[in-house]
Amino acid sequence: MSDTQFDVIAIGNAIVDVIAPVTDDFLEAEDLPKGTMRLIDAERSVDLYGKMGQTKEISGGAAANTLAGATMLGLKTAFIGQVADDQLGEIYRHDLTSVGVSFDTPARPYSDKESEPPTGRCLVLVAPDGERTMNTSLGASQFLPASAIDEDAIRASGVLFLEGYLWDPEEPRAAMRRAIQVARDAGRKVAFATCADFCVHMHGKDFRALIDDGLIDILFVNEEEAGILEGSDPDAALESLAKDVPLVVMTRGGDGAVAARGDERATVKPEPVEQVKDLTGAGDLFAAGFLSGYCRDASLEECLVRGAVAAGEVISHWGARPEADLRALVAKRLG
Amino acid sequence: MSDTQFDVIAIGNAIVDVIAPVTDDFLEAEDLPKGTMRLIDAERSVDLYGKMGQTKEISGGAAANTLAGATMLGLKTAFIGQVADDQLGEIYRHDLTSVGVSFDTPARPYSDKESEPPTGRCLVLVAPDGERTMNTSLGASQFLPASAIDEDAIRASGVLFLEGYLWDPEEPRAAMRRAIQVARDAGRKVAFATCADFCVHMHGKDFRALIDDGLIDILFVNEEEAGILEGSDPDAALESLAKDVPLVVMTRGGDGAVAARGDERATVKPEPVEQVKDLTGAGDLFAAGFLSGYCRDASLEECLVRGAVAAGEVISHWGARPEADLRALVAKRLG
Repeated sequence: MSDTQFDVIAIGNAIVDVIAPVTDDFLEAEDLPKGTMRLIDAERSVDLYGKMGQTKEISGGAAANTLAGATMLGLKTAFIGQVADDQLGEIYRHDLTSVGVSFDTPARPYSDKESEPPTGRCLVLVAPDGERTMNTSLGASQFLPASAIDEDAIRASGVLFLEGYLWDPEEPRAAMRRAIQVARDAGRKVAFATCADFCVHMHGKDFRALIDDGLIDILFVNEEEAGILEGSDPDAALESLAKDVPLVVMTRGGDGAVAARGDERATVKPEPVEQVKDLTGAGDLFAAGFLSGYCRDASLEECLVRGAVAAGEVISHWGARPEADLRALVAKRLG
Repeated sequence: MSDTQFDVIAIGNAIVDVIAPVTDDFLEAEDLPKGTMRLIDAERSVDLYGKMGQTKEISGGAAANTLAGATMLGLKTAFIGQVADDQLGEIYRHDLTSVGVSFDTPARPYSDKESEPPTGRCLVLVAPDGERTMNTSLGASQFLPASAIDEDAIRASGVLFLEGYLWDPEEPRAAMRRAIQVARDAGRKVAFATCADFCVHMHGKDFRALIDDGLIDILFVNEEEAGILEGSDPDAALESLAKDVPLVVMTRGGDGAVAARGDERATVKPEPVEQVKDLTGAGDLFAAGFLSGYCRDASLEECLVRGAVAAGEVISHWGARPEADLRALVAKRLG
């Protein structure tokens, strides 16, 4: 893809993760279904935050996590997302650009904190088994305007990567529809990550329509999301999706992942991890690793191995951004 | 100490740590002496932050770290320190109060970010061997006014714990002098942590004057600071300090720690740690563990063991606030 400025450009939520360990009892008492992501309003956010213990703040956001990992694995990437002009927004921009992701979307004004939304936050509750439950206040993120879409940059990117979470708020959804059109007109690939059960429950019809219109080239799903989308068991869902999407990548939690391209099938087992600390970002980093191979025309098998290595790294510590030298880990694994 | 509301009340910097791994070459290129703490201005802070990779934000501040650990070990504690009315200030207050530390100092207004200082930040650069180099922008922290000193709370606290770092800015120094007077008049103990070489270089005369005036009951130093303070080798410094301070606790890095109370001497070896990840907070948590024994009339030996266990926990992960159940670790170690 030598005519490209970026290998991958992504549109996603700009969210700082606020992470604390919790017990399973806490999740039950707070009526929080373990392993899910839900949107919460300001009042609930204050309430829940007040009940959480000491936290760590680490930049997150599904597509941005994918870009951070993909960049660390050698891709040239750019991010489109909305932070506010506040301290968390400054931190967010720093963390993304510090690994080499291009991020030019201007911050949204935040001169009056009573009336303007701050940078988005996600309260991430991590259970003893590493499973995370996410409670997101989108803040400024949900106001990403269509005008923020850098059409020239999209035309100059091999892959447009879209985060399903951001299909929920209205303005970003419109922006993403426009971005898809721009990418298709320029002959670029469009990758889509469904992100969470609730996204598929709420917007599965839209997602299916995008697929039916031939607008999605690469679909990242987990097996629950695939099942919901197709109204069937995951294996059948993979097969039916593979009929309509050129490349489907389905993660299966502890069972690894499978990719389907036409009649071709490839699978990978999870990488062994000494201790699973925090599952946040596992799917995002799987996509990062996969794309790092895909954009360099690697085999499906290698793409999957790269995904498994990146996912294995990120679940071995707190937070959804890789800490270790991913390139070295991948090189070692591929031998 | 049944007539007390708090076992320990501390006055210290309210600082959020901004943590990133670096190489030794980076420290050299940036002319940053490894293992030190220095104050930096806004311009240098922006420059250095821009050169750091992805960060984690974790609440810190020396005395506050000590209180967090001491509270997790069963003490009742309170903190006096200055945050701004901003996002990091909100996070800071949450993290401290979430473990049970009482923290009532009102936030400093932050309605105009051009003219008012934000909550303090410390850029913590962690080398591969875990040694941290700290670059602090004090921000609002240096404007802690004497009026913030809750004299009733100090009178109602068994120990007043003072952070040497905060002796540097003028307003907090005046506030701490006043606090010492209040504590002494109420017959309370005063503990002082020298915190860093540069504090002793700059304010050693003041520290010595406090000692000579009999105002310090417990002195927390490391061996370098003791040597600078007394102008001698650490062993001789310990002996000369022990003549003037009722209880001296001197940490010795990889050699553990020693305590001197009159003619009594006790030592402890460091706790074995699987992997030293980040030495930030080691001294602070040693003080936390020590005080958790001291305030319950434990032997010097037990106080030191508690200190070593708490320090060992905090250096095994990123950040200066304990993550594990310190009480359980101490109980296991004491058998």
